Amino acid sequence: MLSVQQAADRIAAMFVETWNRHDAKAFSSIFAPDADFTNVFGMKASGRAEVERFHAPLFATMFRDSRLSIENVSSRQIRSDVGTVDLRWSMSGAYDPRGNAWPDRIGLISLVIATRGGKWLVECMHNMELDDAASAGAQQELQRANTA
Amino acid sequence: MLSVQQAADRIAAMFVETWNRHDAKAFSSIFAPDADFTNVFGMKASGRAEVERFHAPLFATMFRDSRLSIENVSSRQIRSDVGTVDLRWSMSGAYDPRGNAWPDRIGLISLVIATRGGKWLVECMHNMELDDAASAGAQQELQRANTA
Repeated sequence: MLSVQQAADRIAAMFVETWNRHDAKAFSSIFAPDADFTNVFGMKASGRAEVERFHAPLFATMFRDSRLSIENVSSRQIRSDVGTVDLRWSMSGAYDPRGNAWPDRIGLISLVIATRGGKWLVECMHNMELDDAASAGAQQELQRANTA
Repeated sequence: MLSVQQAADRIAAMFVETWNRHDAKAFSSIFAPDADFTNVFGMKASGRAEVERFHAPLFATMFRDSRLSIENVSSRQIRSDVGTVDLRWSMSGAYDPRGNAWPDRIGLISLVIATRGGKWLVECMHNMELDDAASAGAQQELQRANTA
């Protein structure tokens, strides 16, 4: 069986490959049949079939020209067959839900992965936009200034 | 042993209670000794002690008057002793990192919880702001209009 980090690397590669083919069915195959998915706006899809139905119209519209890259994959073992994964990503070529060009994005996908019959699948995914580096910097300064 | 949903409800109550006392040490006690924490800006803290050090200066500044509520707790069992938890939250009375009043916030905390020696602890937390309901609505319309 693959280790958690090996599985994380393989799953990250599958995200990139299926996303950049804009293939909702292949993308959804990374998920467990009853996986939970939450996007950057807090919208949910429950189960592999719904993940596919959720993404198919997006790959035809907002994300039809989008290109995903994953900059960093980190993982943590919870049990021998359960892990968490953080994927730091960037995306170019997307349109926002109103059809306007979406400036180059960066974000963080967090996953819970687990094995079913020896195969690692995504049990749970949350995605978040990281579009406020200025606030992160300001908070870091505030923490420094107020730490004894 | 508590079920995943019972543990999720208890942990949600502890988040609210310790946050609203602005008590970084008590807040950090909900986390495993080597837990991973990521805030809404993508800033990380690793381990219970660092979670405490991260929050202590924030409870003295940005969050000194803040009040957290949790509107909804949902959970999912991954193994008998591992689960995921979504906490839909709202917050009033916060200041942003620059010291300005932060308008009432809503967001989503996602947790991975697991037992250690029979006790449920947070292994991993990510927090995200849900401040773009308009985009969620626009995306939902787009999906409706483009679903066969």
